[in-house]
Amino acid sequence: MAAKEVYSKIYNSFAKKIDFNRVVKFSEGKNTPFLVLDLKKVVANYDALKNNLPFASIFYAVKANPHPEIIRLLAKKGANFDIASIYEFNELLHLGISPDRISFGNTIKKSEDIAYFFKKGVRLYATDSTSDLKKIARNAPGSKVFFRLWVECVCSDWPLSKKFGAHPDVIFNLAIEAKKLGLVPYGLSFHVGSQQRDVEQWDEAIAQCKHLFEGLAKKGIRLQMINLGGGLPSDYLIPTPSLRVYASRMKSYLSHHFGKKMPKILIEPGRYMVGNAGVIVAEIVLISKKSESMPYEWMYLDVGVFTGLDETAGEAIKYPILCEAKSKTTREFVLAGPTCDSHDIMYEKFRYSFPSSIKEGSRLYFATAGAYTYQISSIGFNGFPPLKVYVMK
Amino acid sequence: MAAKEVYSKIYNSFAKKIDFNRVVKFSEGKNTPFLVLDLKKVVANYDALKNNLPFASIFYAVKANPHPEIIRLLAKKGANFDIASIYEFNELLHLGISPDRISFGNTIKKSEDIAYFFKKGVRLYATDSTSDLKKIARNAPGSKVFFRLWVECVCSDWPLSKKFGAHPDVIFNLAIEAKKLGLVPYGLSFHVGSQQRDVEQWDEAIAQCKHLFEGLAKKGIRLQMINLGGGLPSDYLIPTPSLRVYASRMKSYLSHHFGKKMPKILIEPGRYMVGNAGVIVAEIVLISKKSESMPYEWMYLDVGVFTGLDETAGEAIKYPILCEAKSKTTREFVLAGPTCDSHDIMYEKFRYSFPSSIKEGSRLYFATAGAYTYQISSIGFNGFPPLKVYVMK
Repeated sequence: MAAKEVYSKIYNSFAKKIDFNRVVKFSEGKNTPFLVLDLKKVVANYDALKNNLPFASIFYAVKANPHPEIIRLLAKKGANFDIASIYEFNELLHLGISPDRISFGNTIKKSEDIAYFFKKGVRLYATDSTSDLKKIARNAPGSKVFFRLWVECVCSDWPLSKKFGAHPDVIFNLAIEAKKLGLVPYGLSFHVGSQQRDVEQWDEAIAQCKHLFEGLAKKGIRLQMINLGGGLPSDYLIPTPSLRVYASRMKSYLSHHFGKKMPKILIEPGRYMVGNAGVIVAEIVLISKKSESMPYEWMYLDVGVFTGLDETAGEAIKYPILCEAKSKTTREFVLAGPTCDSHDIMYEKFRYSFPSSIKEGSRLYFATAGAYTYQISSIGFNGFPPLKVYVMK
Repeated sequence: MAAKEVYSKIYNSFAKKIDFNRVVKFSEGKNTPFLVLDLKKVVANYDALKNNLPFASIFYAVKANPHPEIIRLLAKKGANFDIASIYEFNELLHLGISPDRISFGNTIKKSEDIAYFFKKGVRLYATDSTSDLKKIARNAPGSKVFFRLWVECVCSDWPLSKKFGAHPDVIFNLAIEAKKLGLVPYGLSFHVGSQQRDVEQWDEAIAQCKHLFEGLAKKGIRLQMINLGGGLPSDYLIPTPSLRVYASRMKSYLSHHFGKKMPKILIEPGRYMVGNAGVIVAEIVLISKKSESMPYEWMYLDVGVFTGLDETAGEAIKYPILCEAKSKTTREFVLAGPTCDSHDIMYEKFRYSFPSSIKEGSRLYFATAGAYTYQISSIGFNGFPPLKVYVMK
């Protein structure tokens, strides 16, 4: 595809989706860089998920975007919350969320933190190791535990490696041990990888769950729940199937493997819930040519890898980027951030194209920037402050 | 080398260097994770550099560690400062640093920032593009400018890509244009890549400078300065030559190319100045085996990629890691951070070994963690707060 067509395609497909004119108007007079959140998108995402998977309990993965207005909104809608740390937990308590709506999904925890969670009323914990299980048994006696399975993450834009989960044999033994330790072996979880574009990844994981459900039943352990994890996609440059496709496939995998004995289903959307609810607005600081013969230019923005665009690492997540300029021709650019750090480059292999009339001082709008952005800003690397956030009303 | 030997080697070579017992004692009773700074190391590094390169003006690269006590200390020692943003500039003014000791080394700048710097008294700017040069001419008339050359960064642990600098032909034209615009074409700069282990990289860069000095002299432009940039190493696992070697080679390259017509020399150490002045102290939260057959274990710490260990990206920077445990045998570990993010893994290919008696709750000490750590902490990803900093007195 020629560079020019790439830009027109992005513009035509995203300008309406993100309500571009409204974002531009809202942004006027505000100093860049910043993130604009549109909460209506979060509502729509929540409702669509509820409609498509009505049997699933939704646990919003707070880490995707912990903005208080998003938490409050989802709490009002009836969501539960998946948290990663005692700090997120305290923030949720502060926002008035009841601990029985919170699941502690991090398999890495200190004993004293578990004790604190338990004291506050949390009764549901993820685990994937003997050591962690024993800590839960000691500090949160009688709680429900769910076991995180390893799954291979193919075709995910942000794959999850082997940091979390364990081999099914390990999980089998953990469930037996959990019961001995007085805990309730409640269910299984897995995560197919964030921005997972291949729906079939869930099939294999659900098949593994079924296998463990059966094996453990023979040992007198009746698991009741499957946590389908995250992985539902948001709307970046590389297209994905629709939510409807994901949901109907998940349902068919579940009924294929479990028939009428359907377990309780949890789901932990993060990126899906908030990705398309954010636009990062940045200014072009400098455009330069490095040598006479170079067929593209370098474009330096006032936003970068250390101020919210961390997920451009490895150019994995490709944001749809729009601008106000219009021309018949386009120019190609490498995109870099404002720091003196040479790792602060967003896209060097993948070249974005913009209308030729674009210039220093023009603004760029990164669509689908609602997930995993501002909260990963550094506290002040090279002196640059963290990305500001505005909620568009 | 066997895993056990690797750990002993690290311990034996670093325990004394970092004054391990003193760090352990200082850390007692403080909640992990945190960074301990030892300012005496900064003094020693500054003095050694001054002794080895007495003719060079030292501009400390503030971004490497902007801690106020380090800035104050280096100011007192007589250092100048290389800054990357208006925010670092304001912080330095706040600390009482005079603007004539500040060089604005970032080639990416907004017009209004240049105007602000000029108003405050900064008269020395880096540049590498026509557009930036014109902005400097408009907003900081009559200032000295130095031009940043592209150099290939081979053999550097943290190479710099082509984000900064331009081809010599571009630089040549920029210098001529600078004069026309009423600026003072003052000198050249380059950066051979951070933690540069091959001293000869400076030779080629200095040769390029000489070539440009001569070419521009023919056009009536007499450059006066060479900024040797950063790149001097700190003390990680992979050994480097000593400072004495770097300094003597640099001197010989300079005198080889410039003879008695030695230009004024600037140097911008960052990592070198502060790297060995910091130790990150962390706690082991969890040790687990993912499957029965795995020959190593996973070790999860309460510090990670998002709380100061950003430079473990790609496992480029390998910190010497010590612990208090002692055993005759060792175990091998993958090292990961505490968040639910699977990119929060410090070392997965390179396995660290520790004494077998190490256990959850034990502390690890990351030596040479004074540069590029705490200030890259996220503002709170997964809820975890930025890395705390203590100055050891």
